[in-house]
Amino acid sequence: MCGVFGAYSRSDFIAEEIYLGLSALQHRGQESAGVAWIDGDGRVNSIKGMGLVHEALSQSTLSEAPVKSAIGHVRYAANGSAMLQNAQPICANYARGPVAIAHNGSLTNFDEIRTTLENRGAIFQSTGDTEAILQLLAHQPKLKPFDALQNALAEARGAYSLVVLMEEGLVAARDPWGFRPLVLGRRGDNYYVASESCAFGLIGASFIREIEPGEVVLINEAGPSSYRLPIKSDRHWLCSFEYVYFARPDSVIGGRSVYKARQEMGRKLASKDIPEADFVAGLPDSGTTAALGYSEASGMPYESAVVRSRFVGRTFVKPTQKVRELGVRIKLNPCGELFRNKEVVLVDDSLVRGTTAGLVVSMIRECDACALHLRISSPPVRYPCFYGIDTPSNRDLVAAKQTTEDVARSIGADSLRYLSQEEMIGAIGLPSDSLCTACFDGRYPDCR
Amino acid sequence: MCGVFGAYSRSDFIAEEIYLGLSALQHRGQESAGVAWIDGDGRVNSIKGMGLVHEALSQSTLSEAPVKSAIGHVRYAANGSAMLQNAQPICANYARGPVAIAHNGSLTNFDEIRTTLENRGAIFQSTGDTEAILQLLAHQPKLKPFDALQNALAEARGAYSLVVLMEEGLVAARDPWGFRPLVLGRRGDNYYVASESCAFGLIGASFIREIEPGEVVLINEAGPSSYRLPIKSDRHWLCSFEYVYFARPDSVIGGRSVYKARQEMGRKLASKDIPEADFVAGLPDSGTTAALGYSEASGMPYESAVVRSRFVGRTFVKPTQKVRELGVRIKLNPCGELFRNKEVVLVDDSLVRGTTAGLVVSMIRECDACALHLRISSPPVRYPCFYGIDTPSNRDLVAAKQTTEDVARSIGADSLRYLSQEEMIGAIGLPSDSLCTACFDGRYPDCR
Amino acid sequence: MCGVFGAYSRSDFIAEEIYLGLSALQHRGQESAGVAWIDGDGRVNSIKGMGLVHEALSQSTLSEAPVKSAIGHVRYAANGSAMLQNAQPICANYARGPVAIAHNGSLTNFDEIRTTLENRGAIFQSTGDTEAILQLLAHQPKLKPFDALQNALAEARGAYSLVVLMEEGLVAARDPWGFRPLVLGRRGDNYYVASESCAFGLIGASFIREIEPGEVVLINEAGPSSYRLPIKSDRHWLCSFEYVYFARPDSVIGGRSVYKARQEMGRKLASKDIPEADFVAGLPDSGTTAALGYSEASGMPYESAVVRSRFVGRTFVKPTQKVRELGVRIKLNPCGELFRNKEVVLVDDSLVRGTTAGLVVSMIRECDACALHLRISSPPVRYPCFYGIDTPSNRDLVAAKQTTEDVARSIGADSLRYLSQEEMIGAIGLPSDSLCTACFDGRYPDCR
Amino acid sequence: MCGVFGAYSRSDFIAEEIYLGLSALQHRGQESAGVAWIDGDGRVNSIKGMGLVHEALSQSTLSEAPVKSAIGHVRYAANGSAMLQNAQPICANYARGPVAIAHNGSLTNFDEIRTTLENRGAIFQSTGDTEAILQLLAHQPKLKPFDALQNALAEARGAYSLVVLMEEGLVAARDPWGFRPLVLGRRGDNYYVASESCAFGLIGASFIREIEPGEVVLINEAGPSSYRLPIKSDRHWLCSFEYVYFARPDSVIGGRSVYKARQEMGRKLASKDIPEADFVAGLPDSGTTAALGYSEASGMPYESAVVRSRFVGRTFVKPTQKVRELGVRIKLNPCGELFRNKEVVLVDDSLVRGTTAGLVVSMIRECDACALHLRISSPPVRYPCFYGIDTPSNRDLVAAKQTTEDVARSIGADSLRYLSQEEMIGAIGLPSDSLCTACFDGRYPDCR
Repeated sequence: MCGVFGAYSRSDFIAEEIYLGLSALQHRGQESAGVAWIDGDGRVNSIKGMGLVHEALSQSTLSEAPVKSAIGHVRYAANGSAMLQNAQPICANYARGPVAIAHNGSLTNFDEIRTTLENRGAIFQSTGDTEAILQLLAHQPKLKPFDALQNALAEARGAYSLVVLMEEGLVAARDPWGFRPLVLGRRGDNYYVASESCAFGLIGASFIREIEPGEVVLINEAGPSSYRLPIKSDRHWLCSFEYVYFARPDSVIGGRSVYKARQEMGRKLASKDIPEADFVAGLPDSGTTAALGYSEASGMPYESAVVRSRFVGRTFVKPTQKVRELGVRIKLNPCGELFRNKEVVLVDDSLVRGTTAGLVVSMIRECDACALHLRISSPPVRYPCFYGIDTPSNRDLVAAKQTTEDVARSIGADSLRYLSQEEMIGAIGLPSDSLCTACFDGRYPDCR
Repeated sequence: MCGVFGAYSRSDFIAEEIYLGLSALQHRGQESAGVAWIDGDGRVNSIKGMGLVHEALSQSTLSEAPVKSAIGHVRYAANGSAMLQNAQPICANYARGPVAIAHNGSLTNFDEIRTTLENRGAIFQSTGDTEAILQLLAHQPKLKPFDALQNALAEARGAYSLVVLMEEGLVAARDPWGFRPLVLGRRGDNYYVASESCAFGLIGASFIREIEPGEVVLINEAGPSSYRLPIKSDRHWLCSFEYVYFARPDSVIGGRSVYKARQEMGRKLASKDIPEADFVAGLPDSGTTAALGYSEASGMPYESAVVRSRFVGRTFVKPTQKVRELGVRIKLNPCGELFRNKEVVLVDDSLVRGTTAGLVVSMIRECDACALHLRISSPPVRYPCFYGIDTPSNRDLVAAKQTTEDVARSIGADSLRYLSQEEMIGAIGLPSDSLCTACFDGRYPDCR
Repeated sequence: MCGVFGAYSRSDFIAEEIYLGLSALQHRGQESAGVAWIDGDGRVNSIKGMGLVHEALSQSTLSEAPVKSAIGHVRYAANGSAMLQNAQPICANYARGPVAIAHNGSLTNFDEIRTTLENRGAIFQSTGDTEAILQLLAHQPKLKPFDALQNALAEARGAYSLVVLMEEGLVAARDPWGFRPLVLGRRGDNYYVASESCAFGLIGASFIREIEPGEVVLINEAGPSSYRLPIKSDRHWLCSFEYVYFARPDSVIGGRSVYKARQEMGRKLASKDIPEADFVAGLPDSGTTAALGYSEASGMPYESAVVRSRFVGRTFVKPTQKVRELGVRIKLNPCGELFRNKEVVLVDDSLVRGTTAGLVVSMIRECDACALHLRISSPPVRYPCFYGIDTPSNRDLVAAKQTTEDVARSIGADSLRYLSQEEMIGAIGLPSDSLCTACFDGRYPDCR
Repeated sequence: MCGVFGAYSRSDFIAEEIYLGLSALQHRGQESAGVAWIDGDGRVNSIKGMGLVHEALSQSTLSEAPVKSAIGHVRYAANGSAMLQNAQPICANYARGPVAIAHNGSLTNFDEIRTTLENRGAIFQSTGDTEAILQLLAHQPKLKPFDALQNALAEARGAYSLVVLMEEGLVAARDPWGFRPLVLGRRGDNYYVASESCAFGLIGASFIREIEPGEVVLINEAGPSSYRLPIKSDRHWLCSFEYVYFARPDSVIGGRSVYKARQEMGRKLASKDIPEADFVAGLPDSGTTAALGYSEASGMPYESAVVRSRFVGRTFVKPTQKVRELGVRIKLNPCGELFRNKEVVLVDDSLVRGTTAGLVVSMIRECDACALHLRISSPPVRYPCFYGIDTPSNRDLVAAKQTTEDVARSIGADSLRYLSQEEMIGAIGLPSDSLCTACFDGRYPDCR
């Protein structure tokens, strides 16, 4: 998964705002980060690095950059391709000028595009599909960059939410199927594009509207103007997993508050099979909201009984041999006092590999809890995603081949219940034919 | 405030466990961190650095260090003295061998000791009071180090929870008044000393007992043995602010769960003057537990409506001019959707400067909340601490000179209520004559 | 100017030898350095950085790289283009596999090639002409890489001494005009290619022969095999300035020892107009050898009276304002004692901008020398170089517009004499129609 | 060996000049470097680091430091004690204020002083003897710092050339025996103290005079004033090895030009036993000057036939296994062409371990030289130095136990001749009873 952010100003230097926007989107990608802009000589420049935004980029350098228009990207690398070479934005100074592209999504016809272009002499610098869009654009040197971009996108299939920088302005584009979110914001005369609305709060900008599926927005001195891609989709495929896990709770996607969607998932999870228990707790951060909804609907008291240690995450403690030997409780720590001799309902947002849930369950068992009922506020993930989320292969999806009872046993829970797909869709509150649920039910969209 | 951690093993290399222990105590001090050990040549060595544990120390270096006994320290610098020179542990190879000291607390007779020793020729390398203990020890070159340490402590007054490393072993010492916590843990044959029990969970050790006020514990090949300082205090002065704010909720101090104490503070806060409101929210992280208690006692629904952004703290975003201009919401972000047209009770753990509360209140106002009632789960802080907490001077304590109404107005809350001192003590659950409440009521202990 | 180095082994890991070879060629380029190799997955990898070899590259990383074949480059950036983006080797994984190219020289038809290819959709990543060779190669995706390279070079005009890495092996290629040196060496079964033979000594390899103008050598498991480019030149244009200044004295170029050529230049400089003087001194490092020849031929004693401080060069002292104010004698320092009341002949290798000579003359004047005669062991540089040396524009060439007397006056010397072009060519000892002397006489070769 | 540098100004910020001065003294110590000054709060501050000046210190930080008076130190660590802890200047804020000390030399009664002070409670932070002077000073808290310093020095025995910074001013002090050089310089109203006069040239200052043995100079607003230590020595013991090897040739020590002394050593070396040979060459840098003198006196031509590669020293190439395997010619490279079939005299300044000479001789042999006569422009080093030069133990001194013939054989030279002690003293030109020659003849001074 990735996050994109762009800013356009007529008067302010905004490079540092890209840093801030990317920090607010850090949850969408933690492997690399980058910023790109066009310099006074009309050439595209970029700074990219591995790791979190503050590791990859220098805030102080950006705070001094005389840049009025820029884009940025945070990346979660799939398939071991965590290389700086693949960090985005992808940049080039081609025949018609400078271009930089930041992309969230996954093109399903990438291999096809690459082979065609390489046979015409193209050199690909990266292994990522973002460069395919750039190369498609460059292979139309007779067109202006913005026109060439639209032609290029007409050949792309699959999921893409893009911010693009060219001399004509800042461009935001979203694929016709609407897989990934992309939103437009504003502060005074400055315009912003971001993967999620939570990035606007940090820089004091306000949310204007979502970029629509199939829409291309060009922002220049005249403000934003809207264009349409020539490809139509008869329905939309907004990723339901954004609501379940990926997005930040203070974001609004598809007109629905992520916080409220998660809370409602928790409420619906408490609609039946409520075990006898002393209290309900959530796995922070993403399970907390659903646990609160569960508590409200069930009347069972809520305790924030599992502490997320702010200083024991991946940024702070490396997984050395000692750390593995000691079974160091990276990030999550139960308040032992609360669990002793208690029956507990534990809520998590989703069950993918089952590793974290298993680890937490065993930690709580050591605190002498009597019973532990695991509740998952989404259906079991059973199929891989081809639209930008790096789900593991089937083999590693704990629910792909096992019954619910087997999964409960392997995790060590006394009982396990998922939310049904209908309940999840109901909690999100959007029509079922506008959401992609392929990772839950295997029904993949047909992008043509 | 500071955190101390020590480890003693007969067979394992434990330097990396100091790193882990300090990470778990990071909330007690974020300005500098250090580790000290005695090398194969009988000389004390140390690594110290500015910033968080992972910035100051190299985990990989420590993971390879062949060290069976070591101590560590995290420091919160008071009064602008954030210099590497003052980073602890303080180390020396003196006439009788190597010594390293890590200290949490504050000696009230430091100036007196320093002047006396300087007049005898002593050179102080730092401006901190920890070195006074070292110098007192070194000025008794005829005694063995452990005996000299006990003599030295007999001259010290005020708050100290110490871990000391010398050739005779690992020493833990706590002042006779018992201001700061200090606990003993164990994993197999390894012994651990820490400021808080939460540090044990991370390394798979278990809590044995607290070090008692006036107790000195020497840990060597024979295990721990206990000694008594010659100074007696007729009562104890355990810091009540540890329960209110400082300690981690999953720690147990003075036999009382910090989580439960905070939850009870929230419950008692809801015992009267409960406003009409739609929901109660807490300021994460430390206000969350009290808010849950408030919700339980008042029957008012709880929402985790203020999000703490994991990637927008001090570690990640520096307070540049742009950040200040934009009023960047460092760390805390309200879920706008939840507050619109609602009446809300907001719970925070304490009111010191009032800056954060004021900022959050204004952010929530921008979300169109109708009414905002601030509840503080401790009495107003009105007096400085001389025992290790770096409270600001009176002038900056928002409650020192103003009425509750004036404070509410300056913060922008529709109403404000504190927990009374009696309620707080009741919630902690220890006798009032065993707790220090000087920062609330100005009654300072007399350490003689 | 630049330096290139390549190594091919069937059994040894040679990445660190590239580091060593580049260190020996450091005098040919100090702005950036890079190494490239093909990894086990058949993909080209590179490490590049700004500054000297030891700043740009990590010797320890390279010492551990399991790489049997690699190329490297040191670069002196012309025209302010000191950007990492332009650092070499230039690398790509194109349709037919991995390629890396390191280049010393300058293509005279670069703009033409670039425009043609960009109009076919090519994206240039750098502003340098090395990439033109890569793109020419990639635009022939039906040919094998080595064949495509030969076709590409058939379209290139101007100066190039290349090392290229591809799956078929290590390639060395030199333009048909023979502007820049390129030599082949060997140690056991390992083969090496370098800009100068001095790079072989450092790694214990021995010189085999020079790569000939218009020759392409492919080194693979079978050893080296030689190919011919289809372009013929009726004469050669070996750069005379390599002998004057650029090459290291312990190198042999065109069969002539650079040391001996310089010494002979000094001797010929003493063939007439020898002033009355107490001793002769040279400007280290490059003026020393000629000064010794001058001493020998004139019978005037030689003193190493100007000291080159090893620790006060660009690597060690940055040109801050203070450094400029103090007129800090970067690198060169006269032994004051030797100059007092003496008449001196000062020999330098060439006169380009005249800045260093002027500075040293004024430093010696301050030592109370009576008379100071400047002798230059080459003709005055009056024309820019278009074949790889970054001479300044005419405007900055001190001898371009002024008489010898005016130049002497502006530098502060009592007299000035140059070596004539005939004397220089005679000292080098090669036929005059095999040397390029364009920077001295403006007669530029016609590369067609 | 070490180098010291101090600067005092009434108006200029001179911290960067310390950086420059230390760079000019870099040849005196390359293990660590440091700078100390007194800040606006009357506290001593320092920056120290391992490695060369430009690695240990930040020139840009110093260029911005508002510091009018400062001292600096470069250190060559003896006996494996290359630790940052021992880097100088040694600093303290003691009872009477701030003090910083930089020291070149070695106290012969260090152990005695240390034991005495430790028994009085002193804590030594370092293992070096410089701290002994500081502790002696601090143990006189009733005296003003400058008086206390003079008392302290009255107890010190052995070699010391010191610069000291205290609130009373900048102090330069030299031991009564005059082992190590120390000189005073000036630029306008600024005063400078340095180990060697070559440091003045770089910053545009001029040499005033040497600090005399037993003299203490205090520089403050009133300029320099001179004091005398109460200890008298009946003769002086200026280190003869400074002339032979240690000092820079452009320095003047004891009124004698180091360059001229070395040239004269070369001349005297040619006074007898001159072999038949084609030319004479020197080992750069320190053997060059003597080789020129040898050439002059013998009439044998001089060739700079061994090249010192500027970029292949310790700073640039680390001695990895590969480097050792290849026998990489760190720093020195013979011009092969010159040696083929020639008989050569090779001059080096001294013979200590014999390693470098042996390596160079074997490199020249590989160039097919017919005969190789080694000449050393000083007597054989047979005894360790206790006054600041880190000569190896007897065991490693190649000449300590072997005849000249054996040494020649082990090095691989066809013949070997040393300069006699009388010749060396004659070349230096100072009375023999003012020079220390202990490393040559074992006659150690008696410092009481």
